[in-house]
Amino acid sequence: MGPRQAERFALHFMRASSAQAEELASALREVKSSVKMCRRCFTYCEGDICKLCDDAGRDARLLCVVEEPQDIEAFERTGGFNGYYHVLHGSISPIDGVEASSLKIPELIERVKADKIEEVILATDPDTEGETTALYIARALAGLAKTTRIGYGVPLGADLDYTDELTLGCSLKSRTPIG
Amino acid sequence: MGPRQAERFALHFMRASSAQAEELASALREVKSSVKMCRRCFTYCEGDICKLCDDAGRDARLLCVVEEPQDIEAFERTGGFNGYYHVLHGSISPIDGVEASSLKIPELIERVKADKIEEVILATDPDTEGETTALYIARALAGLAKTTRIGYGVPLGADLDYTDELTLGCSLKSRTPIG
Repeated sequence: MGPRQAERFALHFMRASSAQAEELASALREVKSSVKMCRRCFTYCEGDICKLCDDAGRDARLLCVVEEPQDIEAFERTGGFNGYYHVLHGSISPIDGVEASSLKIPELIERVKADKIEEVILATDPDTEGETTALYIARALAGLAKTTRIGYGVPLGADLDYTDELTLGCSLKSRTPIG
Repeated sequence: MGPRQAERFALHFMRASSAQAEELASALREVKSSVKMCRRCFTYCEGDICKLCDDAGRDARLLCVVEEPQDIEAFERTGGFNGYYHVLHGSISPIDGVEASSLKIPELIERVKADKIEEVILATDPDTEGETTALYIARALAGLAKTTRIGYGVPLGADLDYTDELTLGCSLKSRTPIG
């Protein structure tokens, strides 16, 4: 949330009646106490384990590692992934003081060791922190499972002329046979 | 050029002095008569052959096929391509009545036959028309040269949460080993 949004929220809260304010306060308290982290993938859920982790029909050999719980929704919308997820809750960022140990990386390594996971797909964001995190995990999991990185390239519907040169360079490197 | 831009241009032209109008008219006439198409790659240039085609230091085994002359500039900015280019001047679009024969596709096939090109990189836009054009050319060149398509995936610096699901689906399919 940005400072302007926070200000707007605070002013709205001040103008609200005492009853409304009390209602919001208890709703927030309830959310905070009832919403937990899934003990397998660390996404937010109400029970001990989330719906996706509880679904035995998925492919247990594939694990997709994401930065945030909302990334799970994004990948689920593609309809193209049938494995399980693991949420890191951030990315390694030395500038912001975020180290591997303050993310769910030790838990990920334990999980890969314990479960029979064949491939760990590193789907952290395609920025410096995400890339650093993916490389760190790939090295930590060396010998334990195959690690892959989501493909960089031109997004669908894009205009090549308006695509940045780094992405275009990636799309040349990641070219695939056709025809 | 859109209708609003055209209107603005027309109004500016009406307000200009006769001398200025004459100057613009002759400048346009000169551009139209002096700028030609390169007879090898069909980009715009002043001579018979463009600077890039005239550079013998590039890799003659690689040919990158693009829709428009400005796409060449975009790929040149990546600094990651050292082959030659071929400009189609559009993409196949049955709705708009654009067929393969009205683009520089017959010329491309002749060029691949005549020169010893090993790989044709199809760098048409990542939209329906661009994809159709790439597939058409890949089939037409079957047996003549290896054909590849630029990689689809997440653009660098993107936020996964805001990336459309088709692109995310592609980035899963085009994942590569890491670590």
